Amino acid sequence: MKIGILGGGQLGRMLIQNALKYDDEWFTLDPAKDAPCSSISYFTEGNFNDYESVFNFGKGKDVVSIEIEHVNVDALFELQECGIKIIPSPEIIKTIQQKILQKEFYKKHQIPSPEFQVIQRKSEANFPLPFVQKMNTGGYDGKGVQVITNEADIEKLWDVPSVLETLVDIDKELSIIIAKNEKGETRTFPVTEMVADPKLNLLDFNICPSSISEDVQHQIGQIAQQFIEAADSPGLFAIELFLDKNGKVWVNETAPRLHNSGHQTQEGNSNSQFEQMYRVLKNLPLADTDILSFSGMVNLVGEEGFSGKAKYEGIEEILKLPKTYVHLYGKSETKPGRKMGHINVLADSREELMEKLVRIKSLIKVKS
Amino acid sequence: MKIGILGGGQLGRMLIQNALKYDDEWFTLDPAKDAPCSSISYFTEGNFNDYESVFNFGKGKDVVSIEIEHVNVDALFELQECGIKIIPSPEIIKTIQQKILQKEFYKKHQIPSPEFQVIQRKSEANFPLPFVQKMNTGGYDGKGVQVITNEADIEKLWDVPSVLETLVDIDKELSIIIAKNEKGETRTFPVTEMVADPKLNLLDFNICPSSISEDVQHQIGQIAQQFIEAADSPGLFAIELFLDKNGKVWVNETAPRLHNSGHQTQEGNSNSQFEQMYRVLKNLPLADTDILSFSGMVNLVGEEGFSGKAKYEGIEEILKLPKTYVHLYGKSETKPGRKMGHINVLADSREELMEKLVRIKSLIKVKS
Repeated sequence: MKIGILGGGQLGRMLIQNALKYDDEWFTLDPAKDAPCSSISYFTEGNFNDYESVFNFGKGKDVVSIEIEHVNVDALFELQECGIKIIPSPEIIKTIQQKILQKEFYKKHQIPSPEFQVIQRKSEANFPLPFVQKMNTGGYDGKGVQVITNEADIEKLWDVPSVLETLVDIDKELSIIIAKNEKGETRTFPVTEMVADPKLNLLDFNICPSSISEDVQHQIGQIAQQFIEAADSPGLFAIELFLDKNGKVWVNETAPRLHNSGHQTQEGNSNSQFEQMYRVLKNLPLADTDILSFSGMVNLVGEEGFSGKAKYEGIEEILKLPKTYVHLYGKSETKPGRKMGHINVLADSREELMEKLVRIKSLIKVKS
Repeated sequence: MKIGILGGGQLGRMLIQNALKYDDEWFTLDPAKDAPCSSISYFTEGNFNDYESVFNFGKGKDVVSIEIEHVNVDALFELQECGIKIIPSPEIIKTIQQKILQKEFYKKHQIPSPEFQVIQRKSEANFPLPFVQKMNTGGYDGKGVQVITNEADIEKLWDVPSVLETLVDIDKELSIIIAKNEKGETRTFPVTEMVADPKLNLLDFNICPSSISEDVQHQIGQIAQQFIEAADSPGLFAIELFLDKNGKVWVNETAPRLHNSGHQTQEGNSNSQFEQMYRVLKNLPLADTDILSFSGMVNLVGEEGFSGKAKYEGIEEILKLPKTYVHLYGKSETKPGRKMGHINVLADSREELMEKLVRIKSLIKVKS
């Protein structure tokens, strides 16, 4: 089968890497000539935000999917008209691309998500403090999001179409990944706990399974089911959640694609998110997602103050550790905060896992 | 690092697939334009038995290795002279390539291997019946090997340089994979039991761990140590063994490379033989090889009577089974007996494993 992926980054690379155990032809589109997928797929250098580029790329494929949601969705609608299978649907990609549509989608389908106000410009802001401003478009990896704490902060508001959202008093950040194939079969991965780096606002650690109560587990299961029914599309979706200090779960946002919060499934579960995504794309029976042990992940991001050809300081030490798995993304150049890879680790208990994660984090640095 | 592999088949493909999580450049040489490695490495179409082809391919690489032992070893000696790292050493490849040298190597190093006679031609045969004739060169996957049971059979002897070897009264066929890096660190995988298909003489099932006594375990551990010391080379080696009905272990033969008997390590062990081979090539700390559960493998070989574009009958049924992993080799054309892929499976007990393996074997057929 000819499978086309918009975006040629690490998510696509790991999808293709896993799927090399099946017989398919992979095609990727990315503006960066040396994108992580460029050497392991039929690669087209081009802009996935450009109508013509996406349309021409998609023609002749059996299925077109994404590894980034900021793509030209009009071209996807047009490809769908031409009979090409688009997974997930252009409709749900469009909804998720725009924070305003995404929030309205949650509201419409009674999926719990923080109260919000939509503004087109700064002057319209009229929302109880403290709140979060999320730009309608252009947000990614923590960009386009800011917290407004007090009256003085209101000055800082970006003068663009945005959502203003109640600031949740967060106890834990959680994520659930759910997949659905065209037959309508659905399957979730166990809930993952995400521990963020306050400086970079990039996901830092994943811990799976999360230590949550049965009630919280139940709320999340319900949210995932509500979401997948409302989305009305095959695909793999990562729902990012806040658990507040009163024990209530809120949807922060959803990614209609493979997600950083699922990386530890590569070794921690019977099958990974990448295997599940493959099965969705081919409408195959969904894979079992059982936990094999406690698992966690550390992101490898470029150190502050280093740019250029990447060097992974401490990597030999890491490779000596049992049940520890290095995943680099084939990016030759590092820069501060750039996601260069991740390290997965397995453990027999949560305590052992935390110790290992902290140790790994202290051992390895991406420099140049 | 620029890593060159002689051979572009499934072993190379799975090596490269695994190593996509690191940053290296992979190069392969194979006579078949559509070899399994051709689309995922810098590929050279050429004969790995030809001096010029191998020498030209190896120039400029940091390390050259093999995924098949029938390569031009003179070119490897020459590349080594030019300062290119060859893993495993050309010396041990040469020894293993020729059954006569291989048998003499075991004898010299007191590694238990069945009694034998070397013959240059048929007329020299003078060895107690029943015995096995192994051609000095050209044997592979059961080809070039025949059993001579009685006087009448002696007529069938091939008139070529060969080893005649005592026929072992086999209780079990076993395999141990051992790896050594340039630092001298060594690590073994757990002993695997191989159940052969009597018709195809191709490995059929792997079962790991094997059900062997402590004494047999001890004999095998000693053989692996003796072998790796005698080989005096970094590399990953699969030592194929016979356990006879008196409880004694004999070396059948050794492969100086990745091996079919290690395929279930992909999901069954903390790290796979492919990860270990990568670490050997880069002189990195060797990986832990712990068993995660009972694991097994079924080879997927082309059905008798079918040639042409491969179809995997029953594959959807297989994909519904928990902890079951399909690995296809990216070969578009099937023919009778051709290795097209394998299926790994995990289980909580040997009994469950056997049931699963037999079920899988009955469900799937490679047709055209």
